Amino acid sequence: MHGSLKLIRGGDVVSSSGITRADLLVEGEKIKALGTPGSLEGADETIDAAGTFVMPGLIDPHLHLNSPFMGTVTVHDYARGSAAAAFGGVTTIIDFSTQPKDGSILENMAQKETEAKDSYLDWSVSGILLDAGPRTLEELPRLVAAGYPTYKCFTTYKHSGRLIDDEGMLTLLEATADNGGMLMVHCENDTIIERRLRMEIGAGHFAPIYHARSRPASAEVVAIRRVIDLMREVPATVYIVHVSAADSMALIEEARAEGLPIHCETCTHYLALTEAKLEGPQGQLYICSPPLRAQKDVDGLWRAVASGGIEIVSSDDAGVSPQDNYRIGEGRFDKVPSGLSGIESRLAILYSEGVAKQRIDLPKLVELAAQNPARLFGMYPQKGILAPGSDADILVYDPSVEWTMTAKELHMNTDFCAFDGWKIKGRVRSVLSRGSFVIRDGRLVGKPGAGKRVFRRLSH
Amino acid sequence: MHGSLKLIRGGDVVSSSGITRADLLVEGEKIKALGTPGSLEGADETIDAAGTFVMPGLIDPHLHLNSPFMGTVTVHDYARGSAAAAFGGVTTIIDFSTQPKDGSILENMAQKETEAKDSYLDWSVSGILLDAGPRTLEELPRLVAAGYPTYKCFTTYKHSGRLIDDEGMLTLLEATADNGGMLMVHCENDTIIERRLRMEIGAGHFAPIYHARSRPASAEVVAIRRVIDLMREVPATVYIVHVSAADSMALIEEARAEGLPIHCETCTHYLALTEAKLEGPQGQLYICSPPLRAQKDVDGLWRAVASGGIEIVSSDDAGVSPQDNYRIGEGRFDKVPSGLSGIESRLAILYSEGVAKQRIDLPKLVELAAQNPARLFGMYPQKGILAPGSDADILVYDPSVEWTMTAKELHMNTDFCAFDGWKIKGRVRSVLSRGSFVIRDGRLVGKPGAGKRVFRRLSH
Amino acid sequence: MHGSLKLIRGGDVVSSSGITRADLLVEGEKIKALGTPGSLEGADETIDAAGTFVMPGLIDPHLHLNSPFMGTVTVHDYARGSAAAAFGGVTTIIDFSTQPKDGSILENMAQKETEAKDSYLDWSVSGILLDAGPRTLEELPRLVAAGYPTYKCFTTYKHSGRLIDDEGMLTLLEATADNGGMLMVHCENDTIIERRLRMEIGAGHFAPIYHARSRPASAEVVAIRRVIDLMREVPATVYIVHVSAADSMALIEEARAEGLPIHCETCTHYLALTEAKLEGPQGQLYICSPPLRAQKDVDGLWRAVASGGIEIVSSDDAGVSPQDNYRIGEGRFDKVPSGLSGIESRLAILYSEGVAKQRIDLPKLVELAAQNPARLFGMYPQKGILAPGSDADILVYDPSVEWTMTAKELHMNTDFCAFDGWKIKGRVRSVLSRGSFVIRDGRLVGKPGAGKRVFRRLSH
Amino acid sequence: MHGSLKLIRGGDVVSSSGITRADLLVEGEKIKALGTPGSLEGADETIDAAGTFVMPGLIDPHLHLNSPFMGTVTVHDYARGSAAAAFGGVTTIIDFSTQPKDGSILENMAQKETEAKDSYLDWSVSGILLDAGPRTLEELPRLVAAGYPTYKCFTTYKHSGRLIDDEGMLTLLEATADNGGMLMVHCENDTIIERRLRMEIGAGHFAPIYHARSRPASAEVVAIRRVIDLMREVPATVYIVHVSAADSMALIEEARAEGLPIHCETCTHYLALTEAKLEGPQGQLYICSPPLRAQKDVDGLWRAVASGGIEIVSSDDAGVSPQDNYRIGEGRFDKVPSGLSGIESRLAILYSEGVAKQRIDLPKLVELAAQNPARLFGMYPQKGILAPGSDADILVYDPSVEWTMTAKELHMNTDFCAFDGWKIKGRVRSVLSRGSFVIRDGRLVGKPGAGKRVFRRLSH
Repeated sequence: MHGSLKLIRGGDVVSSSGITRADLLVEGEKIKALGTPGSLEGADETIDAAGTFVMPGLIDPHLHLNSPFMGTVTVHDYARGSAAAAFGGVTTIIDFSTQPKDGSILENMAQKETEAKDSYLDWSVSGILLDAGPRTLEELPRLVAAGYPTYKCFTTYKHSGRLIDDEGMLTLLEATADNGGMLMVHCENDTIIERRLRMEIGAGHFAPIYHARSRPASAEVVAIRRVIDLMREVPATVYIVHVSAADSMALIEEARAEGLPIHCETCTHYLALTEAKLEGPQGQLYICSPPLRAQKDVDGLWRAVASGGIEIVSSDDAGVSPQDNYRIGEGRFDKVPSGLSGIESRLAILYSEGVAKQRIDLPKLVELAAQNPARLFGMYPQKGILAPGSDADILVYDPSVEWTMTAKELHMNTDFCAFDGWKIKGRVRSVLSRGSFVIRDGRLVGKPGAGKRVFRRLSH
Repeated sequence: MHGSLKLIRGGDVVSSSGITRADLLVEGEKIKALGTPGSLEGADETIDAAGTFVMPGLIDPHLHLNSPFMGTVTVHDYARGSAAAAFGGVTTIIDFSTQPKDGSILENMAQKETEAKDSYLDWSVSGILLDAGPRTLEELPRLVAAGYPTYKCFTTYKHSGRLIDDEGMLTLLEATADNGGMLMVHCENDTIIERRLRMEIGAGHFAPIYHARSRPASAEVVAIRRVIDLMREVPATVYIVHVSAADSMALIEEARAEGLPIHCETCTHYLALTEAKLEGPQGQLYICSPPLRAQKDVDGLWRAVASGGIEIVSSDDAGVSPQDNYRIGEGRFDKVPSGLSGIESRLAILYSEGVAKQRIDLPKLVELAAQNPARLFGMYPQKGILAPGSDADILVYDPSVEWTMTAKELHMNTDFCAFDGWKIKGRVRSVLSRGSFVIRDGRLVGKPGAGKRVFRRLSH
Repeated sequence: MHGSLKLIRGGDVVSSSGITRADLLVEGEKIKALGTPGSLEGADETIDAAGTFVMPGLIDPHLHLNSPFMGTVTVHDYARGSAAAAFGGVTTIIDFSTQPKDGSILENMAQKETEAKDSYLDWSVSGILLDAGPRTLEELPRLVAAGYPTYKCFTTYKHSGRLIDDEGMLTLLEATADNGGMLMVHCENDTIIERRLRMEIGAGHFAPIYHARSRPASAEVVAIRRVIDLMREVPATVYIVHVSAADSMALIEEARAEGLPIHCETCTHYLALTEAKLEGPQGQLYICSPPLRAQKDVDGLWRAVASGGIEIVSSDDAGVSPQDNYRIGEGRFDKVPSGLSGIESRLAILYSEGVAKQRIDLPKLVELAAQNPARLFGMYPQKGILAPGSDADILVYDPSVEWTMTAKELHMNTDFCAFDGWKIKGRVRSVLSRGSFVIRDGRLVGKPGAGKRVFRRLSH
Repeated sequence: MHGSLKLIRGGDVVSSSGITRADLLVEGEKIKALGTPGSLEGADETIDAAGTFVMPGLIDPHLHLNSPFMGTVTVHDYARGSAAAAFGGVTTIIDFSTQPKDGSILENMAQKETEAKDSYLDWSVSGILLDAGPRTLEELPRLVAAGYPTYKCFTTYKHSGRLIDDEGMLTLLEATADNGGMLMVHCENDTIIERRLRMEIGAGHFAPIYHARSRPASAEVVAIRRVIDLMREVPATVYIVHVSAADSMALIEEARAEGLPIHCETCTHYLALTEAKLEGPQGQLYICSPPLRAQKDVDGLWRAVASGGIEIVSSDDAGVSPQDNYRIGEGRFDKVPSGLSGIESRLAILYSEGVAKQRIDLPKLVELAAQNPARLFGMYPQKGILAPGSDADILVYDPSVEWTMTAKELHMNTDFCAFDGWKIKGRVRSVLSRGSFVIRDGRLVGKPGAGKRVFRRLSH
C-alpha cells in the first residue's frame, strides 16, 4: 500500500533556510524523512548524492505552451516543453490559458487540460483575461474554486484587444479581493508605446533596436505606478510579471512599505542580457516584451533579487521558431512575434550568473525558483520544499560539471539559444517528480502523461 | 557513544518556511531526523507533542545581564536571567560586555565568561565599545577570532563617555569591513537630546514623559541617517539596535535598496507599549532609551516586522529593581536608571499580539526570534532551525492555554511587569537545550551551568 | 492726442519685488512714470493715495461666466460678473468657452466675444476642449494665433463626455508643444471617482459630505501623476487648475526639479474652507469639484503659496443660484450643480487670511493675483505690473478699513456667501482700468462695454 | 541741496519682473523716477542708453578680500578688488571678516572697516565664526545690531580649527533665531574628507584631481543633510554657501517644502567648469573647495538656478597668485592654497552661458545677482532694484559687443584666468554707484574711497 522507499544519500540538502548535509527518504510520491547522514534506514533503493546539491524541484510559474501568437504558435507543447523544463531542473510548470475574445475563460481552461495530458511534469494554468465584463466576473470565482486562482491581464496591446483599462483594472481588483485570487499584471503603458511606435515607424526605423526604443523603461514604470494607484483604492493581491526595469523596484518597494500586497518577478533574460543583443547578429530573435534593457537594469534587478525585492525568477518561455520569426517579421521589428525560449536555461543562468558569481547564494536560488513560486501560486508546502509530507519533487544538481550552452546541448524545440556559447557551472544530474525519476543521470526517463494537475489554493 | 534517542511526536513543526506535521528525532545533543508522523523509530523516550507547535528554541541577541548602570545593576545575572529566558522559550542568549573606559574589551569578556558559568542556557556575548582607539582596533580582530564577532557602539551618552563620534564610527566601520564582524549601533543623536534635556530640565520638567520628549523619534532618525551616510563611505555590516520609530524604516529600506549591508531589530516593548505609559501610574518604571513612542510607531513597526524590514525582535532586557528605580531617580526622569525587564515576556507578546492578532504568522515569529538571530549573529545552522545535524534546541508551545501575565506568573527577578494584566494566548510547555529539558511541562528542570558558550562566526 | 494726466499720489506702490512710497503718473490708458513722492508734475488730476496700497489691478484667470451647467447656468454674465470682480480689485478676467460636443471651439469663442460686449473690465477667454480629434487639432493653432493661447481639458466627467483619455492627452500635449500654447488640466482621476460614486450612492449616502468622500485627495494626486507621466513623454507647458490637495504639491515640485514646464494654481476657497462646511448648515451650497479638503490641506496649500510652489490663486467662480442648487440637487450630492461664487471675494480673503495673518506678504499677493496671471496667460507686461508703458490697471486698497463679509455687502449675483460673517481687513477703495475709474471711492462708476479683449501671447 | 539730475535715456530697464523700455531719472544718489521714453524732463545730463540693458548694479555677497590663507593672502584688496568688481558690473560687495582663534569677531570687523577705506564701491562684511563659545555668543547680537547680520561657519577644516561641530551648530542656530541674523554654512563633511585625504595621500596621489576625489559631492550632501537635521530642531535662517553638487538641491527643496527657512547660492565657476580642468594644464590653479564637479552637476545647478531653487550666484573670489599657488603647493594638491579669482567674470559668464544660451532670461540674472543678494543680505530696496527712492546703483550693459576673455582683458590682480579664451557676449559699458560713474564707457572713472559701508538689516 505504501510506495517503495528511496534514499537519497549524502547530498547537501538546500532549502531557503540554508544548506544541510542530510539524507532524504522518499516513500512513494512523498518525502518521508530527512536525517543526518546514515541515520535513515530501510530504503529499497539508494541514490548516492554525495557531492551534489539536493534541492526542491523548481517551479516555473510563467510560460506559454502551445500558444497561438501573431500568426504562429509558441514552440513548446506540453510534451516538449515539460521535458525541456525537466532538463532545467523544473518539476512543476504553470502555463497560461487565454480567454477568447468575448468568450469563456473556463472553456479555454478545459481545452488546456486536454493539451496537458502528455506532460512529463506536474502542471497548472493561470488565466489570461481579455475583459472585465459580466461573464468574466461570473467565471472568476469558479476559476479560483477550480484550483486556478491566478490570472493575468495586460496594460498594453490595445491594438490586439488585450488591454484592460483603468476601470477594468479596478473591477478586476475588486473581484480579486473578493475571490481570494491573485491578479498578475503585464505592465507597459500602452499610450506611450503606441505613440513611440508611430514615431519610429513613421521615421522608417524598423531595425530590432527600435522595438526597445518604442517600449522604454518609463512605459513599464508608468504602468506599474498606475496599478499601484488603483491598488490604493482596492488593495487586492497583485503580481507584477516580468519586471525588466531597475527603476520599477523603488515603486514596488514603496507600495509594500505602505502595506499594499504587491508581488513581483523578473525573468532569466532580464538578468543576463541587454538591449545590445538587439543590435548584434540575429538581433530580431532577441525581441521580447518588455524588451531587454541596459546594463544598469541588469545590475539593479540582481540587487533586487538578492535583497528580496524580486521574489521569483521565471522563464516567460514564449519563443516561436526562428524561421517563423524571420518569415513573419519581414524585417520589421513591429511584425516580429516577440518572445524568447527559456524553459530549460533558467537554472543554468541563475546558478552560473547568480550563485557562482556570488550575487546570490544557493538558498536564495531555491527561494526564487521553487519556494516562492510554490507559496505565491498556492502549492505550498505540497511543492517547493523538501519537508516530511511534501511531494518528492527533487532536483539533484552536480556543481562540479562545467559545460558550454548551445541550442544543441539543450532540449528545447528551437535551434536558437539566447545564451549560445555561455560557460555554465554545474548541471542537473537527476530530477524526481513525486518520487519517480524524470531525469536520471542526465537522461530523460520520465513518461509523457505522468504529470498531474496541481490544485492550487492561495493562502494570503 | 551516541546519546539517547528522544522522539518528539505529532507536533506541528514550525520553521521560517512553514508548518509541517512531523515527528522529530533527537539523538544526544543534536537533531537526528524529521519525518512524517509515525515514520521515525527506535526512540528511547517519546514526548507527545500533539496539539502543540514545535519550534526552534528562541534566541535573544540583545540583553544586559549583571550590568552596572547608573549606580545600580540590572536585575538578572546569568542564573536568574537564563532561567527566566527559558520560561520564555529561549535557548540561547547573547549578553553584552562593556569595555572599561580606556580599557581592554578582551579582559572584560574574560570576566563575562566567568559570570556565565551558571547559565542554564547556551550563551554568547557581544562587545560594547567606548572608543575606537588603537587598543580597541588591535583587540577587535582578536575578539572576532575568539567567536565574538559582534560589538555595539553608541551615538549618544556623550556625558557618560560612551558616544562614538563620526570619526570613531568611520574607524569602526573600516575595522569591521576588515575583520568580518558586525557593528551594532545604538542610534540616538546626542546633540539633539542634550539640547532638549537642558531645555526640559531648565523648565523644571521632571516627570517621566519628559524622558520621551527629550529623546524624540527625530533623534533616532537623524542618528540612523548619519550611520548610513558613513556606510556609504565604508559599507561594512551594521545592525541598528532597538529601532523604535516608524520613520526610521524608510531610511533603512532605502539604504538596502542601494545595496548597503544594514540590518535592524526592534524590541518587544516598542511593539506593544506607547509613551502613554509614561504618563500613567508607575510611569517612571517605563523609562527606557530609546523611549516608548506613539501608536503610529507601534503600527509602523509591526508593518515592518511583517514585511521583513525589521529582521529581529529582541528583548533588550535591562531592568533594574523598581526600588532602585525610585530611589536613584529621585523623581527626576533624567536620574532614573532606564531600562525594562523583558527577557521572559518576548514570546508571549509576539504570539499574542502578533500571531493571534494576525499581524504575523508563526513561521515569521520563528524567523524573527530564532532563525534570523542565529543567522545574523553567526550561529546558523547550529542554532535557529530544526534540521538534521542542528542543535536540539527545541521549544514546545501549547497554543490552547490562555493566561494573564503578572509579575508573579513570570520568573524574572522583579516585581514589576510592563505587561501586567495582559491576556496571553498560548504558553511554553517545554524547552530543550541541546537535547536536554530545561523546562518540562512548565517546570524548570535544567541545571545552572548546563549552558555552553556558542562560538559565533559570521558568514556574510 | 495724449490722454489726460492723472497723478496717484503718495501711496505705497506694490510690485512683486517690494513696496515703495511713490507717485504714479497715468497718461491716458498707460502708466507714464513712477517717481519719488512729489517728483512728478503736470497732472490734470491728482488722486490722493496716502495711506493706501497702490497695486496692479488683479487678474482672475479662472472663472465661468454665463456657463450652462447641469440644467442651469452660472450666476454671472459679463456685466454682473465683471462689476463684482471690479469690487474685488480685479481689472482683467479670463472666462472659459466650451467646445460643443464634436463641434467647433472657434465658433463657441465667437459667441463668447458677443457675450463679452457688456464687460466693465478687460477680458479674455480660455478654451475648454472636449476631444482631441482632427477638427480640434486643426483649430488649436488658429485659437492660439487669435490670441487665445490657453485651453483646458478634463481628466474626469467621463459620464458627461468631457474626459480626455491618455491618448487624447498625449495628442493635446503634442499639439501644445507645437503651437506654443498652454494646456490647462482639471486633475481628478475619473475611475477612482466613478467607483466611489457607485459605492456611496449604492449605500444610500446622499448627504453633501459624500461628494467629498467620492472625490478624495488621492484622485487628484493620481490624476496629476498621470499628467506628469505623459509630460515626460511630451514636455509641453501644462497648468494644473485648482490644486486642492497638499499632497499634490510634492509631485509638481518633483516634476519641476526634472525640468518639466508644469505650472499650477489653487483657488480662494481651498485656502480658507474645509470639508467641514459640507457637514454644516447649507452644506450642499459648498459643493464644488474638486471638493473642499481637510485643514492639513489648507495649511499645506498656504505653505506652497508662500514658497512659490503655487503660482496663482484664482477664484474658479462658477456658482449657480442657491435656489437652483437646491431644486436640481433634490437632496442628492451627485445631482447638485457644483461650484462656488467667488469672483469678488478673492482679494479680501487673500489679504485677510494671507497678508494680515502673515502667511504671505503683500508683494507675494501681487505676484499671485496679478503678475503671475499676466505672465503665465500671456498679458505681461501689458498687464500685471505698474511700470512705465504698462496699462494703467490700478487698484487702490485701503488697509485701515475693517468690515464683515456678507452676501449683501458684496456685489455678486447671489444671496449665498461662502465666507458669510468673516471679518475682513482692508477694502478696495478705487479701481482704474486703462486709466479710467471703474470703482471710485467704493462706488461703481465704470461702464458696461468699456472692457476690451486682451490679445494674449505666451512667451515661454 | 538736491544733487544734479541725470537722465539715462532709452534703455531697456531690467528688473526681476521683466524688461521695459524706459527712461531713468537720477537725482543725486537716488533714483527719482522711471518713465516712458521721453516722459521725464529737467535733467542736467543725459546718458544715451539706447540699445543697452539698464540693470540694478550687481551685488556680490561672497568674496574674500585681503584674506590671509595657507601662508599667503588672497590677491584682491579693497581697491583692486572693488575696481575689478566694477568692471564686472558690481556696485556692492560683501567681504568676510574672520574671527581670530578664541578672539573677537568685532575687533576683526573694526580692522576690516579700516581696510575698506579705499573701496571704489559700497561694501559690507559678513563674519566668519570659528567657535560658538560665550564670547562669540555675546558678540553676535552686537554684530547684528551694528549692521552685519550675516556670518558664516564651516562644517570642515577641523585640522585648521575652523570646524563647528553639531553642538556648536545648534548653538549658532539658536543664537541666530534669537538675533534675527542669517547663518551662512560651508557644507562639506569633514570626517569623510579627512579619511579620503589620508587614503589618497597614503597612496601617493598628489595630482590636483585628487583634491576633487578627496572632497566628493557626497561630502557636501551629507553636510547639508546634517544642517537640515539640526534646523528641524531649531529652525533659524540658514544660507548654504557655494552649492556645487546637483544632488544637494533635492535636500534643500525638501527642507523648504517642510517650511524650513533655508537659502542657498552657487558660484560662477560651478556653473561653467568641471573637474576635467583639474586634469588639464595648470590643473592646480583650478583647485577650490568645494571642488569643481561633473558635467551633470553643472547641468543640475543650471536647472536649479532657472527654477529658483538656487537664489543667488556669487563669485567666491578667493584666488591667490599663481606664483604662490605653485610655490606653496609644492606639487601636492593638499598644500595648494585653494580658491579662484572671479570677482570680475561673474556677469560675463552668467550672461554668455546663461542668458545667451537661454538657460535663464535677463530678469532672472538680475534676480540672482542683484535683487536676491540685496534681499537676503538685508539691503533691499536700498540696493538691488531700480525703483524711485532706491540708490542709483546702475549697470549699463551693451549686449552687442562680443569679446574674448583673457587675464589681460580683465582687471583682476592675477595673470591667471579660469575662463581664458572664452567668447563672451555683451560687455559692461558703464556703472554708476549712488549716482556717480565708477565705470564710464569702459573706463574706470570712480575714486578709491568713494564707497560707503551699507548698514544691513534682515527682514525675514
